[in-house]
Amino acid sequence: MGNWERNVRRVTPYTPGEQPTRKDVIKLNTNECPYPPSPKVAEALAAFDAGELRLYPDPEAGMLVHALASHYGVRPEQVFVGVGSDDVLAMAFLTFFNSGRPILFPDVTYSFYEVWAALFGIPYRCPALDETFRMRREDYLVPNGGIVFPNPNAPTGLAAKLADIEAIAAGNPDSVVIVDEAYVDFGAVSALPLTERYENLLVVQTFSKSRALAGMRIGFAIGSEKLIRFLNDAKFSFNSYTMSRLACVCGKACVEDEPYFRETVGKITATRERVKKELLALGFSFPDSSANFIFARHRRVPAARLFEALRGEGIYVRYFPKPRIDDHLRITVGTDREMDCLLAFFRDYLDRERE
Amino acid sequence: MGNWERNVRRVTPYTPGEQPTRKDVIKLNTNECPYPPSPKVAEALAAFDAGELRLYPDPEAGMLVHALASHYGVRPEQVFVGVGSDDVLAMAFLTFFNSGRPILFPDVTYSFYEVWAALFGIPYRCPALDETFRMRREDYLVPNGGIVFPNPNAPTGLAAKLADIEAIAAGNPDSVVIVDEAYVDFGAVSALPLTERYENLLVVQTFSKSRALAGMRIGFAIGSEKLIRFLNDAKFSFNSYTMSRLACVCGKACVEDEPYFRETVGKITATRERVKKELLALGFSFPDSSANFIFARHRRVPAARLFEALRGEGIYVRYFPKPRIDDHLRITVGTDREMDCLLAFFRDYLDRERE
Repeated sequence: MGNWERNVRRVTPYTPGEQPTRKDVIKLNTNECPYPPSPKVAEALAAFDAGELRLYPDPEAGMLVHALASHYGVRPEQVFVGVGSDDVLAMAFLTFFNSGRPILFPDVTYSFYEVWAALFGIPYRCPALDETFRMRREDYLVPNGGIVFPNPNAPTGLAAKLADIEAIAAGNPDSVVIVDEAYVDFGAVSALPLTERYENLLVVQTFSKSRALAGMRIGFAIGSEKLIRFLNDAKFSFNSYTMSRLACVCGKACVEDEPYFRETVGKITATRERVKKELLALGFSFPDSSANFIFARHRRVPAARLFEALRGEGIYVRYFPKPRIDDHLRITVGTDREMDCLLAFFRDYLDRERE
Repeated sequence: MGNWERNVRRVTPYTPGEQPTRKDVIKLNTNECPYPPSPKVAEALAAFDAGELRLYPDPEAGMLVHALASHYGVRPEQVFVGVGSDDVLAMAFLTFFNSGRPILFPDVTYSFYEVWAALFGIPYRCPALDETFRMRREDYLVPNGGIVFPNPNAPTGLAAKLADIEAIAAGNPDSVVIVDEAYVDFGAVSALPLTERYENLLVVQTFSKSRALAGMRIGFAIGSEKLIRFLNDAKFSFNSYTMSRLACVCGKACVEDEPYFRETVGKITATRERVKKELLALGFSFPDSSANFIFARHRRVPAARLFEALRGEGIYVRYFPKPRIDDHLRITVGTDREMDCLLAFFRDYLDRERE
């Protein structure tokens, strides 16, 4: 056996939430949408001619890019698309974080950031959120090689103030600032309008949450034409054809159905607000979520114990055994019925615990 | 305006072949399959429930991996899948070529190799093919940081000898050797069986050519379990969910329809052999192609002139204005009818030229 292994890039990969193959579980662990995608997606699929699959897709994914540009009121040259927002973020890390100085992201945040940094050899520093899990603006007004944070943050669900985001973009003209808005549609204010003023500000969003297309793999970024050009140059140096013909067709149909989108988001946020009240009554506390999940801890019962008990009942939530957050559960907001099952379980379990 | 641009990765992206939006062209420029994918793909699409798209796909793409493992008689742990073979190759470059020593690939070959090397900062050297466009085995038995070449080679179409590939894999125990078999189904001998003996040998294939699914974006690699584990670690550090639910479903349906696959490949190779004879009669010469394209030069008329004349008629072929090959056209093998149009054009054009 040779020594080829010595030249392999050693990494510690991101661990995605479990995707159980059993159909009878209540799946509240990966922040998917509990409702199907727009019926326009099914129509577009039904109308699609499979024979077209013999041909490469448009490498620019023009159909999808134009639909997004038109929807968000920007120029097509300001839109980048990828295979989910993880693909977009990975490409953005590769493209923009090459200064050799540490990039900044919060200590409690989306755990993929440190994985990308490690993969590409990017140094990083993680300013601590305050004791209420809020970002401190001043932590991001120091020398750095780039900045990335989610808004709302994951897994806390807390939204940042737009004024803070603007101050961070304005205060870092030598860095690219990435706002990861995977969950923004559920109640935070998007930084999209700021991209007109700050050419170093990149906003990333996804079709996997509010648009119910996690299974299709579509994410996008909007920013200045210059930022998007650089991103596309890197993308075209990696894989010319990332977006399949079906991703383009389904993505376009989806983004064009605004009434369905509003209805879906409305239902999820209504359920979330109701569940918040019920969780409070059961002895849980949580940061006030603007996302499609609630990051809750119980005043008495350890999160790890609740996690295992829920799992035993076929109710999957997410538990992160990490400093500062190992007493919390991240619970995706499902349908009313799914949440009623969860709440019934908690009621019963906590009653029994007390005895 | 700030200095953020100073930290951007500067690259010269790969230029894919033109994807004209006009429908009335004869498209012989990106080596797509002229026949539609297996009817089983259309059936699988029709049976697919769009509601499932709300959920993430299996991050392991197990359904597709198992179908491939079963088809090629390997263990699922030996199969890696990606968004086309370009995605697979990009990930393999990132994973395996980290020694700091130059990697090796031929001077005349798939032009994406140098783009990936530049993107990831991998040094490279390009041993010259001999005057008949053949690889010299001894050029790859020197110190190196990795080896990659297509078999059959692109854009020449020439197949390598399996004995040469084995000698290269055996002679480089300290390097990963990648055989890019995008076109292998059209007449070359696959190195797949060698992967059982050489744990440093990775074979990459695609659904975009012989399987007529370029628009779906599916590629795969087969190798030792160790190689595949390292590749997956890098993939899971980049994007957990690369293969959409539809890619998994369509890919499985496609690979399971072996009779259709054989029929399609049979038709294409029969057309290729007929066109070879006709091109010879018209004064063209070419390396003896084992792929779904012919790399031809005319004894009298410059390739650039033919390229433009063809384009004027709505017949798209590929022309590479590069040293050693700027007198050639790469012509994809289309349907018999498409090739008859091409040949009729050549007959007419060359007649007029003579006058």
